[in-house]
Amino acid sequence: MKRTGGAEAAKRAAGRAAAAEVSDGDLVGLGTGSTAAHAIRRLGERVADGLDVEGVATSHQSRALAREVEIPLVPLSDVDRVDIDVDGADQVHADADANALVKGGGAAHAREKVVAAAADRLLVVADDSKLSATLDHPIPVELLPDALARVERAVREAGGDPTLRTADRKDGPVVTDNGNLVLDCEFGAVEEPAALSAALSGVAGVVEHGLFVDMADELLVGDADGDVVRREP
Amino acid sequence: MKRTGGAEAAKRAAGRAAAAEVSDGDLVGLGTGSTAAHAIRRLGERVADGLDVEGVATSHQSRALAREVEIPLVPLSDVDRVDIDVDGADQVHADADANALVKGGGAAHAREKVVAAAADRLLVVADDSKLSATLDHPIPVELLPDALARVERAVREAGGDPTLRTADRKDGPVVTDNGNLVLDCEFGAVEEPAALSAALSGVAGVVEHGLFVDMADELLVGDADGDVVRREP
Repeated sequence: MKRTGGAEAAKRAAGRAAAAEVSDGDLVGLGTGSTAAHAIRRLGERVADGLDVEGVATSHQSRALAREVEIPLVPLSDVDRVDIDVDGADQVHADADANALVKGGGAAHAREKVVAAAADRLLVVADDSKLSATLDHPIPVELLPDALARVERAVREAGGDPTLRTADRKDGPVVTDNGNLVLDCEFGAVEEPAALSAALSGVAGVVEHGLFVDMADELLVGDADGDVVRREP
Repeated sequence: MKRTGGAEAAKRAAGRAAAAEVSDGDLVGLGTGSTAAHAIRRLGERVADGLDVEGVATSHQSRALAREVEIPLVPLSDVDRVDIDVDGADQVHADADANALVKGGGAAHAREKVVAAAADRLLVVADDSKLSATLDHPIPVELLPDALARVERAVREAGGDPTLRTADRKDGPVVTDNGNLVLDCEFGAVEEPAALSAALSGVAGVVEHGLFVDMADELLVGDADGDVVRREP
């Protein structure tokens, strides 16, 4: 992960540009990660200036930030649709014909995908280092703990190499907010994201995976100069 | 649910016939429900007579029974394949060309499906009341609690009518062994089980559903006279 000033400027530009897309009355999905955080902060400024919106958080992290900047929140369990969702990505396929990205570095991808699926409009925000000519980022797969060995085997049979994500500040594996485990699965360059997405969804014991295919409506990519390129993915 | 002596005899016959299929050295999936319980009891008798097998439980219920009849158990999280799995069904498509059944009345279907998917051979045991010319049993869908409203909407968009399963001996909804909720989803007669299965698996927030398509290897159906008809589904 780049932590340079240039990447920060890029993230900030993309996040703020996305926040500008929110309109009065919107129910807004509040994404997770450093770029989405810029959108949440900017949205908080707009709320302070009188914008009338409600937010739905995709993670503990985005909920805490939304509270800090005083965006009114509604619980996700009550939400069946969202007007606009602003979220980041760990990797975005640069091919204009592909609409595929990988999320889940923060293990929040199940909740992020629920919000994204509910959204009329999903804006994906990223700095330009996240664009890639091949989709080769490891794909996080959240799974029921009891299904660990079985899912590892199914991932291998699908051509992947699974690694159980271990925690830094507790012994043993990362446990998600849903009480599950995460396998980071190396598939090399994914040639057919839609097929892999369906295959992983169909594995018994898989709760949600980090491949988001045909979900994004617009991509906002910032660069180090603070410029933002927009395109439909 | 029939609780007549005839249905009991049918379940007993089917369960015991399936237990006879287990061989020395097998790792055996131990299904959930009243018919699978007959298989577990019979398998316990065979273990007492010297059969050398290990079992993997699909639920608290099957684990407790396996302990009672002294079948050695291994934890599911360590298991990536199973030699033979014996499990019941709430409804089985009677059409010989279809291989589709509905499970999940006991809310154990996620774990049951993990074991079934791991099994080289899945024997489905049932009394003949479970056979149906149309697959119209409500389909249980286990989901992340946060995704409730969104999954309800997705089920409706897929043509289903979802009802949150409520508990009898606690206030509010049933919570599964995985900490999730269950929607019982009426779809009427399911004409294309494989398509519906894939669609439900692809809904963000769905953990596992009770449609088992193309998973069964053999069907053992008992009748009130204690006869068992076998067929490939």
